[in-house]
Amino acid sequence: MFGSLGVGCWEFEFVTALLQQVRRTIRRHDLCPAGTRLLVALSGGSDSVALTLILRELAPTNGFVLAGLAHFNHHLRPTADRDEQFCRALAVRLELPIVVGGVDVREYADAERIGIEEAARRARYAFLHRSAADLKADRIAIGHTRDDQAETFLLKLIRGAGLTGLGGIYPQRGDVIRPLIEASRAELREYLEGAGQTWVEDDTNTDLKNPRNRIRHRVLPELNLAAGADTTNAIARAAGLARDDSQWLDELADRRFSALAREAPHGLDIDAAALEEEPSPVQRRVLLKGLRMVGNGREIGLEHVESALGVAAGLSGGADVPGGRVELRRGKLVLLRRE
Amino acid sequence: MFGSLGVGCWEFEFVTALLQQVRRTIRRHDLCPAGTRLLVALSGGSDSVALTLILRELAPTNGFVLAGLAHFNHHLRPTADRDEQFCRALAVRLELPIVVGGVDVREYADAERIGIEEAARRARYAFLHRSAADLKADRIAIGHTRDDQAETFLLKLIRGAGLTGLGGIYPQRGDVIRPLIEASRAELREYLEGAGQTWVEDDTNTDLKNPRNRIRHRVLPELNLAAGADTTNAIARAAGLARDDSQWLDELADRRFSALAREAPHGLDIDAAALEEEPSPVQRRVLLKGLRMVGNGREIGLEHVESALGVAAGLSGGADVPGGRVELRRGKLVLLRRE
Repeated sequence: MFGSLGVGCWEFEFVTALLQQVRRTIRRHDLCPAGTRLLVALSGGSDSVALTLILRELAPTNGFVLAGLAHFNHHLRPTADRDEQFCRALAVRLELPIVVGGVDVREYADAERIGIEEAARRARYAFLHRSAADLKADRIAIGHTRDDQAETFLLKLIRGAGLTGLGGIYPQRGDVIRPLIEASRAELREYLEGAGQTWVEDDTNTDLKNPRNRIRHRVLPELNLAAGADTTNAIARAAGLARDDSQWLDELADRRFSALAREAPHGLDIDAAALEEEPSPVQRRVLLKGLRMVGNGREIGLEHVESALGVAAGLSGGADVPGGRVELRRGKLVLLRRE
Repeated sequence: MFGSLGVGCWEFEFVTALLQQVRRTIRRHDLCPAGTRLLVALSGGSDSVALTLILRELAPTNGFVLAGLAHFNHHLRPTADRDEQFCRALAVRLELPIVVGGVDVREYADAERIGIEEAARRARYAFLHRSAADLKADRIAIGHTRDDQAETFLLKLIRGAGLTGLGGIYPQRGDVIRPLIEASRAELREYLEGAGQTWVEDDTNTDLKNPRNRIRHRVLPELNLAAGADTTNAIARAAGLARDDSQWLDELADRRFSALAREAPHGLDIDAAALEEEPSPVQRRVLLKGLRMVGNGREIGLEHVESALGVAAGLSGGADVPGGRVELRRGKLVLLRRE
């Protein structure tokens, strides 16, 4: 009796702490203003099942409403239909409306000439926005966790994303919100187990050929051993701080860009002397923005920004950049658009 | 004949490219102004042996002089004396003066009540500065590579160093310079092998209980597999960009600190309304600086900065911080020093 009472207390405290943490995330980032109608994206995995249960618990006392669930069937995995059935059954049990949709992602990818992953992402988000409109929901809640945050940070890091920011996943982007972004996957599973709630496992999550899976199953465990502790918290914090830093530097650079750059028939002119006086984080971002405008959607890398900086400083007479060329003419850094 | 000629050409191009890269690092960061007399820190490992050979090659045509070498014997490893002999022999062969010194690091650590690693670092740098004075050298060159840069970035990341910067290793700090910071260890070893130059291996580098070794031998190889390529370049670039961003934000925050903070008998007063108007990267850095002054050398974490921010925003009446307390009094954020 005593033992089970003890466990009960501990469990109660654990659940209370988890709910409080999610509520803090929601409040700090103003994810659910009063009266918000939320659609929850439900894959059937532990993260999105926990998200559904937690938001259902928080809704009555926190001024928002669960408008319903949305499940997107990618028709990619062998378990796709089992997952759909699981989500339908959960919706019935929770007495929540559910929208189920899906496309053949492989077909979609071929038609749009994009990769499978990007195709799945686009099709999924398009479906979620349609479902939100159907259920008259203002915002879409997605079950990204602190673990996803750490994984995304490391993925961006190794892909050389230093220039466009290591910031990782935003708690909010448009009408998409991520209330679990400060919660850990292990805690969410513990919560589900305590509540007697099952979930479906995604078998493709174990394929180490997928970079994210390798980071999840190999890199992070080794980092935890190096630190002698769970590192997702430290990494997610660093991601949050990097995001804040670069978000503000981006805003500042946007203002400086407006002051320094002039559109021209040939592309863009930038006042080279004034650019030189800016601090280097602003210089790089102003040039990145300019090169992106001239490049017309082409990928701009750090090496292009650095060569444009070299031209601005008079170290080289000119440099080819994606979709154009950079030259220094009478104190102006000229970004020429190639036809 | 043809084959060996081909290899010779390739080798020549490889060496030329490596030397050019190091020269570019030296020039970009102005590591060796004209007439600089350099002391090279030589452990006998591949990095410092390559550094010695490369700087000796670059000196005549790049306006600096190799004043000599310095080897510090930590008396910690079983191979310590073998390493010292190796360095002495190399100095003789290269006809360069060498200063050899050492202390019993374990004894020093006990006397100063610090860890072995920190004791080794302090004793080594003190020795290098004395040696530089002896050889009338202005700067001390250290063989840190891009790999060290990537390892340091990951170490800082998992230790939660987001607040004080993920920037990693600086190309220059005071009179210490790092000309190899953009070169890879593998390239340096290839260079030494091509030149028929041996080096000593540090057996302690394989002990996985050491966090840096685990990052080197386990984390980075897994990251390379996830990326399908060597990731040290991407990580080192991100470290460089993060360093530039945070260096400038630090300078900006220092200026804002001078405008917003006033020393007081009880500690420090900060204008809360003016602080509120600053962007969050500046707010955090201003508070970090203030809390550090009041904390008098105690470790300040993100959680302390966040609770001080909470007090400033009126979310809580006050908060205890290391070595003091933060309160809001008549529009002033008061940082009280505890006696």
